[in-house]
Amino acid sequence: MRKELTMLSDSTVPADMPADEFRRAGHALIDWIADYLTHLDQIPVLPDVQPGEIRDRLPKSAPATGEPIDEILRDIDRIVMPGMTHWNHPNFMAYFAISSSGPAILGELLSAAFNVNGMLWKTCPACTELEQTVMDWLRQMIGLPESFWGMITDSASSSTLQAIAAAREMVKEHPIRQKGLFGAPRLRLYTSEQAHSSVEKAAIALGLGIESVQKIAVDRDYRLDCRLLAQSIASDRETGWLPFCTVATVGTTSTTSIDPIPEIADICAREKLWLHVDAAYGGSPAILPEFRHVLNGCDRADSLLFNPHKWLFVPIDCSAFFTRRPDILKQAFSLVPEYLKTDQDQQAENLMDYGVQLGRRFRALKLWFTIRYFGQQGLGERIRYAIDLAQSLAKKIDQHPHFERLAPTPYSTICFRAHPPEIQNEKELDRLNQQLLDTVNTTRQLYLSHTRLHGQLTLRMAIGNLHTTREHVDCAWNLIQECWKSIYKQVT
Amino acid sequence: MRKELTMLSDSTVPADMPADEFRRAGHALIDWIADYLTHLDQIPVLPDVQPGEIRDRLPKSAPATGEPIDEILRDIDRIVMPGMTHWNHPNFMAYFAISSSGPAILGELLSAAFNVNGMLWKTCPACTELEQTVMDWLRQMIGLPESFWGMITDSASSSTLQAIAAAREMVKEHPIRQKGLFGAPRLRLYTSEQAHSSVEKAAIALGLGIESVQKIAVDRDYRLDCRLLAQSIASDRETGWLPFCTVATVGTTSTTSIDPIPEIADICAREKLWLHVDAAYGGSPAILPEFRHVLNGCDRADSLLFNPHKWLFVPIDCSAFFTRRPDILKQAFSLVPEYLKTDQDQQAENLMDYGVQLGRRFRALKLWFTIRYFGQQGLGERIRYAIDLAQSLAKKIDQHPHFERLAPTPYSTICFRAHPPEIQNEKELDRLNQQLLDTVNTTRQLYLSHTRLHGQLTLRMAIGNLHTTREHVDCAWNLIQECWKSIYKQVT
Repeated sequence: MRKELTMLSDSTVPADMPADEFRRAGHALIDWIADYLTHLDQIPVLPDVQPGEIRDRLPKSAPATGEPIDEILRDIDRIVMPGMTHWNHPNFMAYFAISSSGPAILGELLSAAFNVNGMLWKTCPACTELEQTVMDWLRQMIGLPESFWGMITDSASSSTLQAIAAAREMVKEHPIRQKGLFGAPRLRLYTSEQAHSSVEKAAIALGLGIESVQKIAVDRDYRLDCRLLAQSIASDRETGWLPFCTVATVGTTSTTSIDPIPEIADICAREKLWLHVDAAYGGSPAILPEFRHVLNGCDRADSLLFNPHKWLFVPIDCSAFFTRRPDILKQAFSLVPEYLKTDQDQQAENLMDYGVQLGRRFRALKLWFTIRYFGQQGLGERIRYAIDLAQSLAKKIDQHPHFERLAPTPYSTICFRAHPPEIQNEKELDRLNQQLLDTVNTTRQLYLSHTRLHGQLTLRMAIGNLHTTREHVDCAWNLIQECWKSIYKQVT
Repeated sequence: MRKELTMLSDSTVPADMPADEFRRAGHALIDWIADYLTHLDQIPVLPDVQPGEIRDRLPKSAPATGEPIDEILRDIDRIVMPGMTHWNHPNFMAYFAISSSGPAILGELLSAAFNVNGMLWKTCPACTELEQTVMDWLRQMIGLPESFWGMITDSASSSTLQAIAAAREMVKEHPIRQKGLFGAPRLRLYTSEQAHSSVEKAAIALGLGIESVQKIAVDRDYRLDCRLLAQSIASDRETGWLPFCTVATVGTTSTTSIDPIPEIADICAREKLWLHVDAAYGGSPAILPEFRHVLNGCDRADSLLFNPHKWLFVPIDCSAFFTRRPDILKQAFSLVPEYLKTDQDQQAENLMDYGVQLGRRFRALKLWFTIRYFGQQGLGERIRYAIDLAQSLAKKIDQHPHFERLAPTPYSTICFRAHPPEIQNEKELDRLNQQLLDTVNTTRQLYLSHTRLHGQLTLRMAIGNLHTTREHVDCAWNLIQECWKSIYKQVT
């Protein structure tokens, strides 16, 4: 087939890439991707570049005239690959696994080709209705009741911002949508000191300010302390604050701790606060019967998010946002200029009405492809396997005389450090663990991250990538022990 | 090649789609897309479905076990296509053209496969540095000075929200990031009554409220009236408002009018207001020497956005955001928890510091592919061709005794209506033009949108899709005239 992608009526029309060239280049790229994903564990997970090196390999200006597609594809290996941190790599254990799966990549390819903006039902009925359908599938998969309505956003940051905006809209004391926060009572939002930075960032963006975020201390398992939450609300009311929202977390970023949602829901109900649950990482395992309990109490939340792009094997970006009060979200955000009015505005949802962004990609396709290809059980097996790998390793760490875990491991992310019995100086332990982290990451064979828990430098190992097997975890643990031996030898 | 995408160490490991299956399905999907884009103009641009119809074709729950990929791909034709509004269609003239091109689709495919989160330099150096490079290419292409720094956001809505947040951060009277807007002076933002709804939506989200947006009337060419802007600022200062920002538009949504940026820049400089320019649609033609002038004065803006996903042939989402004050943006948004600290924080940019979202897709790839494949000249020729098509049609409309244009046509979007000389009643004209619009769109052969200009129902025809040729525009115009004849016959 040698037809142009565009039907040409005269020869001077500047058209798209010819169809046969698209086919050829497309097949080549599909093959490249299959090879890449197959051989990933034979290359380092981290690149060997300094800041500016990739930039220096690129021309300073755009080409005036076009270049052959083959040349562009060749530059993936020549220019892009040397600067890649491979999130798909089985030894990528630094941040929560966000592995693409084959069917999800294909879904995203189709979405790029359709290239619709699903802002209105009419601008793509399939986009709106497939989104509503797969969101309802997800709702059932994680066990939320029917009263929850769902939409896809780009990121947990956006989902949380929307949730807090809806909570703000519930404030009856001041017409915030109309008059803004000028002259409004000072609003207070509660979240644990282990909550994700996106909560504070949303408060900044929404004009609430950092001071509006009251960070509640955690118990020794890094879970929000409900007694302190209740106290804080009471004392804020006494000092003129208006409590309006609590953001609880199921699977915090540092330790994946799970806040006590049922107790928090009790307090929010009593105090009439919006309860938003950030389950970005921790929500996906709820599709497994034995992990359904992690969302206990979430049926009483006003909104909840979890990120299929974290642990349901679809590429970034895809955050699933649920709320029992879509009416409030719409009340907060809906603005319909004349040019966006349609005949179906009464019978159909226009998803632009529920968030900040007007433009909406057809993100439901990748979810639809992935859920169907693996099935709920298949997705669950993959999550279960990752958790099992982490639980086995946690046991090994506990048994090792030179290592200790610094937090419980409810999912598949392990917080640990080297701690030989004869070294008790915390500064020295910090120094040694920093050295351990640097030594491991400098091998570029394994990528770990860190956090601080009770002031102690803590190594984070997040297992959950679709490509990670028991062998990879064993190799990673061996590498950590070897690196540690070389460091320990120098201090003893 | 029959290797699994994941190296398996034992047979019970639940893995990704097998590599050979990914290849086969990937090739099939690439071929499907090539056929789809080639034969698009042989199918209707609008679907023939009622709200709920697509949803009814889908199962109510997720499948428990996996389904074959072939079945899923088959359902693109069976279930998705009947509900598609085809934004790629040459007769899609309802909203600004946002056509994908072949190379851009391939770039997005690669981005889905890499699936990195470029939040930090370290989490993917190639993502950050390629983004900075192509943003600098774009800066040069549209003729902005070197003092502008750029980043990619998902949408114009997000870019504008960021810009207004930065403007808000410049307010010295109150520590807004820390204390929020409680107790702050009432801030006022200026924009024309033709500005995009995203300005008002950003004001709502940012806690400024609808009242903070002072809409300035336009001249008869739908351009912001600078005399009224100056007056409004002066009178606001007298009545206790604190003016802080002006959002000007290059290419408004309804009529694509261009605000007088040099005069607005004078006022903003004098009054110390942040000047943000929304050139979402109107910025791309500035890559043509003869259209460079549309951005006259924009070198004095504090920030500017334009959307390559609108008129540079990359799929949604991709908004190019430029600012001369990235330091202010960072000051507004940067929040770095322990687990996101890296060794390179001093030497390299972490793009998460400049916006709301922590998660960042590798959007630069599609821009890189597209700019290189077509070259600046090739991109320019395609934009020039679309503008030329629209200008020719505008002349025909002007010459037709039953039609009139209701606004100038500086680019390729035409605002017009039917207006036979013997009908002067505006209500009747509205009714007839609504009927005309409905009749045209009901054919599903052509998709137009509408707006209201000076209260008059106005048809909008946006030309600019990569697949639209002169023949398509001629057919569209013939269809409009035919539909009109049938309506006109009934009233006379």
